[in-house]
Amino acid sequence: MLRTHTCGELRLTDVNKTVELTGWVQTIRDKGGVLWIDLRDRYGITQLLLEDGQTAPELFATARSLGREFVLKATGTVIERKSKNPNIPTGDIEIKVTALDILNAAKLPPFLIEDDTDGGDDLRMKYRYLDLRRNPVRRNLELRHRMAQQTRLYMDGQDFIEVETPVLIKSTPEGARDFVVPSRMNPGEFYALPQSPQTFKQLLMVSGFDRYYQIVKCFRDEDLRADRQPEFTQIDCEMSFVEQEDILNMFEGLIRHLFKAVKGVDLAEVPRMTYADAMRLYGSDKPDTRFDMQFTELKAVQRPGTFDTIDLTSGKGFGVFDSAELVVGINAPGCAHYTRKQLDELTDWIKRPQVGAKGLIYVRYNEDNTLKSSVDKFYSEDDLKKWSVQFNAKPGDLMLIISGDANKARKQLNELRLEMGSRLGLRDPNVFSSLWVLDFPLLEYGEEEQRWFAMHHPFTSPKPEDISLLNSDPGAVRANAYDLVINGTEVGGGSIRIFNRDLQARMFSLLGFSDEEAKAQFGFLMDAFEYGAPPHGGIAFGFDRLCSIFGGADSIRDFIAFPKNNSGRDVMIDSPSTISQAQLNELKIETVATK
Amino acid sequence: MLRTHTCGELRLTDVNKTVELTGWVQTIRDKGGVLWIDLRDRYGITQLLLEDGQTAPELFATARSLGREFVLKATGTVIERKSKNPNIPTGDIEIKVTALDILNAAKLPPFLIEDDTDGGDDLRMKYRYLDLRRNPVRRNLELRHRMAQQTRLYMDGQDFIEVETPVLIKSTPEGARDFVVPSRMNPGEFYALPQSPQTFKQLLMVSGFDRYYQIVKCFRDEDLRADRQPEFTQIDCEMSFVEQEDILNMFEGLIRHLFKAVKGVDLAEVPRMTYADAMRLYGSDKPDTRFDMQFTELKAVQRPGTFDTIDLTSGKGFGVFDSAELVVGINAPGCAHYTRKQLDELTDWIKRPQVGAKGLIYVRYNEDNTLKSSVDKFYSEDDLKKWSVQFNAKPGDLMLIISGDANKARKQLNELRLEMGSRLGLRDPNVFSSLWVLDFPLLEYGEEEQRWFAMHHPFTSPKPEDISLLNSDPGAVRANAYDLVINGTEVGGGSIRIFNRDLQARMFSLLGFSDEEAKAQFGFLMDAFEYGAPPHGGIAFGFDRLCSIFGGADSIRDFIAFPKNNSGRDVMIDSPSTISQAQLNELKIETVATK
Repeated sequence: MLRTHTCGELRLTDVNKTVELTGWVQTIRDKGGVLWIDLRDRYGITQLLLEDGQTAPELFATARSLGREFVLKATGTVIERKSKNPNIPTGDIEIKVTALDILNAAKLPPFLIEDDTDGGDDLRMKYRYLDLRRNPVRRNLELRHRMAQQTRLYMDGQDFIEVETPVLIKSTPEGARDFVVPSRMNPGEFYALPQSPQTFKQLLMVSGFDRYYQIVKCFRDEDLRADRQPEFTQIDCEMSFVEQEDILNMFEGLIRHLFKAVKGVDLAEVPRMTYADAMRLYGSDKPDTRFDMQFTELKAVQRPGTFDTIDLTSGKGFGVFDSAELVVGINAPGCAHYTRKQLDELTDWIKRPQVGAKGLIYVRYNEDNTLKSSVDKFYSEDDLKKWSVQFNAKPGDLMLIISGDANKARKQLNELRLEMGSRLGLRDPNVFSSLWVLDFPLLEYGEEEQRWFAMHHPFTSPKPEDISLLNSDPGAVRANAYDLVINGTEVGGGSIRIFNRDLQARMFSLLGFSDEEAKAQFGFLMDAFEYGAPPHGGIAFGFDRLCSIFGGADSIRDFIAFPKNNSGRDVMIDSPSTISQAQLNELKIETVATK
Repeated sequence: MLRTHTCGELRLTDVNKTVELTGWVQTIRDKGGVLWIDLRDRYGITQLLLEDGQTAPELFATARSLGREFVLKATGTVIERKSKNPNIPTGDIEIKVTALDILNAAKLPPFLIEDDTDGGDDLRMKYRYLDLRRNPVRRNLELRHRMAQQTRLYMDGQDFIEVETPVLIKSTPEGARDFVVPSRMNPGEFYALPQSPQTFKQLLMVSGFDRYYQIVKCFRDEDLRADRQPEFTQIDCEMSFVEQEDILNMFEGLIRHLFKAVKGVDLAEVPRMTYADAMRLYGSDKPDTRFDMQFTELKAVQRPGTFDTIDLTSGKGFGVFDSAELVVGINAPGCAHYTRKQLDELTDWIKRPQVGAKGLIYVRYNEDNTLKSSVDKFYSEDDLKKWSVQFNAKPGDLMLIISGDANKARKQLNELRLEMGSRLGLRDPNVFSSLWVLDFPLLEYGEEEQRWFAMHHPFTSPKPEDISLLNSDPGAVRANAYDLVINGTEVGGGSIRIFNRDLQARMFSLLGFSDEEAKAQFGFLMDAFEYGAPPHGGIAFGFDRLCSIFGGADSIRDFIAFPKNNSGRDVMIDSPSTISQAQLNELKIETVATK
């Protein structure tokens, strides 16, 4: 090694040692007769000292010629610092330099290599290799490293075998769009990159591997919304001879292990909620449970076959509520002081096209126990009192109410709830709240395509007690499917799988596959089910997202070493790019001119 | 869990416990009144017992209806076996069955799920999920799992950070053929799949990551020879502030750790040999050092500027040797008894087109100290005596000699050496011999293309003392490059990299890149070298191959869960395959009809 120690290693106990350090020039302070260099590497910073008169003149001149980010090898003696720096572990010592080799010079970086940089996103992406030098970005990737190591440690301890599944697989029409790879050896044919190793992990269960996992790259050719990447990483897992309860326990164990080992956080036992309850209480299948503010219904949706559904709003002459399928709200604690201006602004916020509510009704529960609402024309204080009881509101609270079509109103109120949570500081990224959401619907109807789609994927099993509904009322069939939600983000999801050929065939048929299509696409899996397939199920975690949540960040991008931008482009290497005509010829493909 | 124990778990100490086991029917033995079922899972085999009269009649009938590979859940009591089976860990007990659930039926598998199967390669590949049930295949993948875990353990302990590099990158013309991926969002442009993460790991060094590793999929669109896969896995590593010696020590440490942890083998210190010596002594840059049999030169190549080069063959009237550039042989110990027929067969073997030698000369060193050769017409016993001294041969040995063009003769003799090693049983797959091969040439000349190619890759640094030869004698420039060879297979290779923009540009120019091409392809790397690149180097191991060597197998295929065949096809899922016109339209590409 060109060094004897790293820049994060030396302490007072090393005083008088002759050492060699290597690293980058973080800063130079030139006080005329004395010159200090902060030398940086991955492990820390160590201060180098050069003193005029005591240091050889050529050496002193060399040191003066250095610039930021120069790569050095410094030889010298460890001495105790006169003025110690308690903020860094090496702050008690410095190196009295006796020799200095410039291993490489550096041009002035296009942005500051500091925790707070002056570089914009585009510049940082183009010079990603410099951005990665900054502590916050490097720490994110170190966190990711620890997450991966600890995941493997846990899985290994639970007898899971890591198996690599292929990357060059087969395109299937179900689900998101595939990236494809033309095959030169089989002209006119294509591989596809996996959106997940789903079928392969199921085959491993048929093979008797019993417990499989993999931290694996997956690919989706989707129009990239903010914070989506065409290639992403999953913790992919599957187990045999299990029921849903076993999966939930096993992977609750993983998450709690990760929180403990990586963050030192004791995560509480993960509560459970059905999909139906999550939609009813939060208007979302991934509620942020760091704060309460559950939905309260003033006029509930009439459920088939029931009569005494709550309705505290109808018949008072307020047409908006009278005609609404659902009147639902949240109670914002301590917000009764909101001014008219604030409430107008909140109303404007929720009426933006991104949320799309028609309006917002409020009820102030004043500290003096009076109630004041924006619908006082229609509802007496007595009516409002009943509402406030329903809301479990207290003096000082503010009730915010939305109405209309049930699904839309819930979706809008979910947005409002999250916004209020943010405004009230209830969504601290360093507080962690998790939730299992269970009993997802098996299918959802695509209005545009006029057919059923698998909500999870076509291999998810229906709940046995709901199988009889598959023909009569497919939308009511619940799946053995579950999501793990942390802080309002779905970090993982999975299901107990179908392991019976007939049921799998019936599922494909429901999804509009002809027998021939099902056989052509998934014949190998259905065949496998005939040779002794065990009951099995699994889960996959979005690893990039999980890391970002552990890192307390909103964006996954800085938890990926070399991410792509929203056009799927790596601006550093300038990819994708054109390829040569010779390559196209070999692959027997042509590009079609675009206007 | 549907089970209380696995099929490999129960012992005498568990007798009288009520247990639930799940697994596959390995065998059924029906002795009329008594029926035994071997129930198998990943963890082992447990014997189930059903006795007529003692077992309920329906249960007995159910058991009789079972077939091989049915999936069962068996409930019962652990009892001591009357006739114990010392060959399996559960052999002292059996389960007296009280309930039996058929979890899934199984058709008769197309081949036997036994260690020695009757299934041919094609059938086993098509039903890979059944092949994976067989112990030898499953054990290979378990070995691979342990190799991966132990690799990460070692690397983690040495402060290496695991960083995932992108899979969708940029096509580059240098090296092997890329797989490409059309970009829908950037029509007419393509990503490429990485042949290795080379440039990214170098950028990570520029970023100061100091020590990087990754177990990562790589891709090469080559015409597949036997035992090549279009996608393969590397242990990819890079370190900063190192010299070659540091890399050799670090990764010798990895290999020795793996041998110890996975195989319980104490690997000897890895010897080192230059490329030049390896070619001279073994005719190969990856010699199998499990056995000796080094080459002996009877007439050496005249080295420039030297005069007293050995020649024990010229001037005796044997034109073949007189006109040969090189006369070289091996000494096969104890083979003097080879019959004329055996020697003729060996001569035929070496004259096959695959080896291509013109002939084979032999000298028998008989037990009675006489020497007998196929060139007695030209060489006296005294001449032969001198040869045998040169060969360090002993009575009973057989010297086998080849001549001709030096490179060709060495290549042919290498084949003969390996063949003799095999015939003499000197290549035991459970014996391990490793070697570092050092000082590879930087460049090799492509006669066809009439230009220089990088022997390793364009980022490999020349030895500083040879840089002056770059213009005058490029072929003589040695690289800071090294390979790790185990049992005659190159399992890893790497180099100290160029980290200076000018030298890198000079290298690209030597390789025939115009400045524009170099900038378009690798501009980002050359730019990075200007912002403070540290000295760095690394290595990559072929993980599939490493596993196969640890597993004592010749083929990598059974160390890959779902391999492709020699046409790059996955016959199980039938991939590659055609994709829909709609997909092609979206991607703005067309396939070109092939005749």
